[in-house]
Amino acid sequence: MIRGHLLIAAILLLSAAALPQTTYINTIDIPDVAGYHTLKCDFHMHTVFSDGDVWPTFRVKEAVLGGLDALALTDHLEYQPRAEYVSKDRNAPFKLAQGDAAIAGLILIPGAEITRSMPPGHLNAIFVQDANALVKETWKDALTEAVKQGALIFWNHPGWGGQQPDHISRWYDEHSYLLSSGILKGIEIANHMEYYPDVFAWCLEKNVALFGNSDSHAPIDFEFGTGPERLRPITLVFARERSAASIKEAILERRTAVMRGRELFGEERWLKEIFEKSISFSTKSFALTGKAPGMSRVTNNSDLPYSLVLVQSDSSIWFPPEIELSAGSTAVFMVHAQSNSVSLARPVTATYEAKNLFTAPGKALKVVVEVDVVAKPKD
Amino acid sequence: MIRGHLLIAAILLLSAAALPQTTYINTIDIPDVAGYHTLKCDFHMHTVFSDGDVWPTFRVKEAVLGGLDALALTDHLEYQPRAEYVSKDRNAPFKLAQGDAAIAGLILIPGAEITRSMPPGHLNAIFVQDANALVKETWKDALTEAVKQGALIFWNHPGWGGQQPDHISRWYDEHSYLLSSGILKGIEIANHMEYYPDVFAWCLEKNVALFGNSDSHAPIDFEFGTGPERLRPITLVFARERSAASIKEAILERRTAVMRGRELFGEERWLKEIFEKSISFSTKSFALTGKAPGMSRVTNNSDLPYSLVLVQSDSSIWFPPEIELSAGSTAVFMVHAQSNSVSLARPVTATYEAKNLFTAPGKALKVVVEVDVVAKPKD
Amino acid sequence: MIRGHLLIAAILLLSAAALPQTTYINTIDIPDVAGYHTLKCDFHMHTVFSDGDVWPTFRVKEAVLGGLDALALTDHLEYQPRAEYVSKDRNAPFKLAQGDAAIAGLILIPGAEITRSMPPGHLNAIFVQDANALVKETWKDALTEAVKQGALIFWNHPGWGGQQPDHISRWYDEHSYLLSSGILKGIEIANHMEYYPDVFAWCLEKNVALFGNSDSHAPIDFEFGTGPERLRPITLVFARERSAASIKEAILERRTAVMRGRELFGEERWLKEIFEKSISFSTKSFALTGKAPGMSRVTNNSDLPYSLVLVQSDSSIWFPPEIELSAGSTAVFMVHAQSNSVSLARPVTATYEAKNLFTAPGKALKVVVEVDVVAKPKD
Amino acid sequence: MIRGHLLIAAILLLSAAALPQTTYINTIDIPDVAGYHTLKCDFHMHTVFSDGDVWPTFRVKEAVLGGLDALALTDHLEYQPRAEYVSKDRNAPFKLAQGDAAIAGLILIPGAEITRSMPPGHLNAIFVQDANALVKETWKDALTEAVKQGALIFWNHPGWGGQQPDHISRWYDEHSYLLSSGILKGIEIANHMEYYPDVFAWCLEKNVALFGNSDSHAPIDFEFGTGPERLRPITLVFARERSAASIKEAILERRTAVMRGRELFGEERWLKEIFEKSISFSTKSFALTGKAPGMSRVTNNSDLPYSLVLVQSDSSIWFPPEIELSAGSTAVFMVHAQSNSVSLARPVTATYEAKNLFTAPGKALKVVVEVDVVAKPKD
Repeated sequence: MIRGHLLIAAILLLSAAALPQTTYINTIDIPDVAGYHTLKCDFHMHTVFSDGDVWPTFRVKEAVLGGLDALALTDHLEYQPRAEYVSKDRNAPFKLAQGDAAIAGLILIPGAEITRSMPPGHLNAIFVQDANALVKETWKDALTEAVKQGALIFWNHPGWGGQQPDHISRWYDEHSYLLSSGILKGIEIANHMEYYPDVFAWCLEKNVALFGNSDSHAPIDFEFGTGPERLRPITLVFARERSAASIKEAILERRTAVMRGRELFGEERWLKEIFEKSISFSTKSFALTGKAPGMSRVTNNSDLPYSLVLVQSDSSIWFPPEIELSAGSTAVFMVHAQSNSVSLARPVTATYEAKNLFTAPGKALKVVVEVDVVAKPKD
Repeated sequence: MIRGHLLIAAILLLSAAALPQTTYINTIDIPDVAGYHTLKCDFHMHTVFSDGDVWPTFRVKEAVLGGLDALALTDHLEYQPRAEYVSKDRNAPFKLAQGDAAIAGLILIPGAEITRSMPPGHLNAIFVQDANALVKETWKDALTEAVKQGALIFWNHPGWGGQQPDHISRWYDEHSYLLSSGILKGIEIANHMEYYPDVFAWCLEKNVALFGNSDSHAPIDFEFGTGPERLRPITLVFARERSAASIKEAILERRTAVMRGRELFGEERWLKEIFEKSISFSTKSFALTGKAPGMSRVTNNSDLPYSLVLVQSDSSIWFPPEIELSAGSTAVFMVHAQSNSVSLARPVTATYEAKNLFTAPGKALKVVVEVDVVAKPKD
Repeated sequence: MIRGHLLIAAILLLSAAALPQTTYINTIDIPDVAGYHTLKCDFHMHTVFSDGDVWPTFRVKEAVLGGLDALALTDHLEYQPRAEYVSKDRNAPFKLAQGDAAIAGLILIPGAEITRSMPPGHLNAIFVQDANALVKETWKDALTEAVKQGALIFWNHPGWGGQQPDHISRWYDEHSYLLSSGILKGIEIANHMEYYPDVFAWCLEKNVALFGNSDSHAPIDFEFGTGPERLRPITLVFARERSAASIKEAILERRTAVMRGRELFGEERWLKEIFEKSISFSTKSFALTGKAPGMSRVTNNSDLPYSLVLVQSDSSIWFPPEIELSAGSTAVFMVHAQSNSVSLARPVTATYEAKNLFTAPGKALKVVVEVDVVAKPKD
Repeated sequence: MIRGHLLIAAILLLSAAALPQTTYINTIDIPDVAGYHTLKCDFHMHTVFSDGDVWPTFRVKEAVLGGLDALALTDHLEYQPRAEYVSKDRNAPFKLAQGDAAIAGLILIPGAEITRSMPPGHLNAIFVQDANALVKETWKDALTEAVKQGALIFWNHPGWGGQQPDHISRWYDEHSYLLSSGILKGIEIANHMEYYPDVFAWCLEKNVALFGNSDSHAPIDFEFGTGPERLRPITLVFARERSAASIKEAILERRTAVMRGRELFGEERWLKEIFEKSISFSTKSFALTGKAPGMSRVTNNSDLPYSLVLVQSDSSIWFPPEIELSAGSTAVFMVHAQSNSVSLARPVTATYEAKNLFTAPGKALKVVVEVDVVAKPKD
């Protein structure tokens, strides 16, 4: 978690005297699942080429040091407040950033934000060929061109206060059209500091991919802070390979989830295995006598905490009502026989709800904690 | 020291719904001295308009949140690697940033970097009227124009590896010319991660102002980190008022010092009073019996630590060989009689060297620590 | 906030070679109010002489380094689980600790915990003369002896789960007796990790002093952690002088309040002035044009945060709905005219509730924020 | 690294209402090597039963939460300054602590400190049967008894200022006797805040085990702090099993090393493999064109940092002069061809010195860094 900075390749090559000290990556450790790579992606970021604060190459540096696998720069096509001072070439961000991305091994996906009033609101096109060609009179024409180029379209921040002052996400006829015509491949359920529970439900119902993106304009750390409470959303993509093509395939097959601060949103098939692969017991077996306790040690190797609340447990063994497995930490919890007369020798289990992992709006993932107990009565 | 971010005024005005939460300023607490305001300034920063990573308004936000009083954006006049993508108007950074600076109460000083090979190397012109007019064939013409506009000129990073591969600062005839002609008003003794002791000596000898600036291209926190080891240099200006005019006057009268991480460089007249006004004793008086110790409590209210090493003390009272007064902390140190037979009732003093405060290269500031002691012999 | 450690005087005197490096005090900065010193006190702590983990001198060291002014070691009189291994002399903790306390300038108050079943539960006697004499058959006899010695009595943790498994604080006839007989001078409204709102109401109704104490058995940092979420309660005593006698007088006159993590509990007469003396504006005056905002800078010099929520404000000027003034930080907030046609030149005020300062259970302190505005309409 | 606390079993059993929240262990992650378990041990700690500040059960709690595998409480046999207040039973610390140790899975080794003037100074006996029987007139008799009980003897802090005011470690005839008679099995090369390079050399020469212990009197965190600069020494024991017997066997076979803050001391056979098993590359293969760089990502999974300085490298590929692999971090470093005409396709290596890993006094461990390169000339 140590922070550093990465000198750009240009400086590196200028002078051996300016060669970089070691720098550090703030990795985001989430296990691979179901035979896929778990790629950490942000598909919605801005640069000076629309209304952002930073040059495209800076986005590459901060993404690499921030532990991302893939990035899309998606400047507004129609909102160009700095046109007096910067080029109107909508492909400039991608062109400028791709060299550093290649050196750093970052997957850079060409993109743009189709920026229209609601409905249909703002839509991101990623995997575009030529962003300039998407500058059209109507949003339909822009989307037609994007689809023609093989781009994927997702709907940005449906409940954004700038377009929905009451912060309510609304589904319009235009979105039904986008869905039924096969154009809409996903929706942001989290954007910047916001989370939209209703949109999470829509994605599950309508079978489109979940997205969570930063929509960052300033440097990420400036906008979201660096503390544990940081809410920056990312999209987890479960991809066959670490490549742009595999990301595209995964999105089309809805193999995504959303991580936002200490919360994870997605289908049980992903979340359950992420939890199970994150934790490992260093003390799991107990010889208990009477009600004397045993002390379990369990390590959470991931960068997600797990806040577990007991739902149901084996009747003879007491489990803690709550277990907090902080990210990257080894936790201790106690178990003990419910009475002095318990006699057993077998695995015992307890079912917990992981209160920060959601398989649907308001619905926490259920997980099982198992320990091996040999209990004998106290004389 | 809590970090936050500042929404730009434009966003603020767009929508009451987007109104900012409270944000925090990482103040740099250094006492005012000699009747002057101690202003924290960075006179050398870059934006996307030469080879920097950020938009001018971002520099205002980070300066305000970073506790600066004054800022100069000094993009390279002659090095314009992004001319294909951004405007060549050398006044653009100032024009774009001045609105936010006014709202935020930041003193924004128009500037530019005259970027030439060595000698004379890079020179900053601040308080310029029209940076575009400084684009000239020769550096002499550029300086003539700058002086005509009423600008102040200082020499940047004399020992920079990009121009002096052996990192040795060299004084050329060109610099003698600049000095004798009254053009050169100061030199950077610290720039980015570097400190030049020889240049510190030059400034004292030749009576020009000390400067220490970040020369930042990326966001400050990205480039220098946020930890206690952070080396970002700033120029302290001792100014009659908190205004651009007072800063100019102060530089002309050489009322500056340089702060770089935990080190301070400058004349004794400033440093001594900064030290004395930084610390306050909450326990300063002791009734000692024999060699039993008394415990002094002293608070360092500044953001500079003081690493004190004993030079000489009253012969009857023991003082610690080292006292570390961390920034913003209350420290404890012990004193006691040197023997059980000491009898006295008066202030006693010890002279320490503040090892991180330099009044000349390698020369630490001497400070006096005084406590009030009533000591009686042990029976 | 830098942590360190304090070598005991005995070691100090053994050898100049073992002389201590500077150590640091984690001061608790709360302003003095109403002409009184605000003393930070813990009147309820344990040592190895009942069921605690530490030697009495350690409590002195941790109290000094933890920023306390006064401390009472109050080991259980009747619960002595270690009598096989340690002395039964109930005065031992005070006798052992008083030497270091004197050197360190800590006010050490002799005390003991009268440890009885509920009712009346556990009662602390502080300012005792001879704790051994309080070992009696009945609690009434123990209290009679304590009162005879001039001790002050307060009731500990009325809602403690060890005696009230449902965590409900109950007022028994025994407590009515203690109150009407003038024996009971205060009650703990906060103890260890618990807070008892009902008890806060009792104290206000029945005119007894508020107490908040750690009841610590292990080292304080081990038991409560060192992070910002730390809940360790302390009693603030508003005392004429920094002395044991003044603390006693202040308690008898109910000049106390309770600080627990980021919360403060007490009468408005203390809390209001604590807030007002904690904050200082560095930017308070604004020249506003139309709806363009002004940026206020305000420093909270105390170690208490203030979480302000707007209740009412001047109709012409917009104030933020929420202002968070973190402890020891300089915050920024915006104000602006509610419309472009506002014209005024005067102080304007807003009333906020400080959501973490309680003048009664559930009742937040109201505070006023004032800024000086010269607003002129936008053309 | 999140800190917490562990309620003692007694409290746990008193009341389900007092059951502990999850607590966290500050694990010390050092890889197992050569088929052995790497156990983290402190064989020298004090309690209130000599001159320490804490009760024996507290040492168990702090050891478990501090990530130790094994602990010896070694109170002074002859220095009993608190005999007026605590039992003189030298077995009391072990007896009192063993219950909690069993529940927590901590290996508690019975021990005592034979506390004599120099020579021979202080000697620890661990694996004693009855510490009371070691209280003898002469140190020889004490050792004879210890050996009779099957104890292991090691020499404590040879350079301690309390016995060697000039801090020089001296080898006396008495130590030659202890060595030649087979009594002396090891020596502390690090104790408390001190490190003795000469003693490290003695251990290697004389074939006795290396020890590094805290000699802690106060709580560990109070004495050593919790920051990254913390210098608390521990002994690493390379043991067949996680048991007391295996620890004894390992010491006899000199399978130990010493960790102290960010430094590691021991034989190359341990240190080399610790380094190699600590690091893993996530990017190790590069396709380089001309002098364009490749960016390597390497994770240090251990709690030891590695400060690498280049000694020698493949002539065609540039490696960084320094690589800092911080504990628990993923670092980035660059490699590139030394010229634009390099053509190769094979693993290339560089030899570095790990400046904080010592195989003898002043002798840094050499390690090899290997990357896979396909380099082609730039056109």
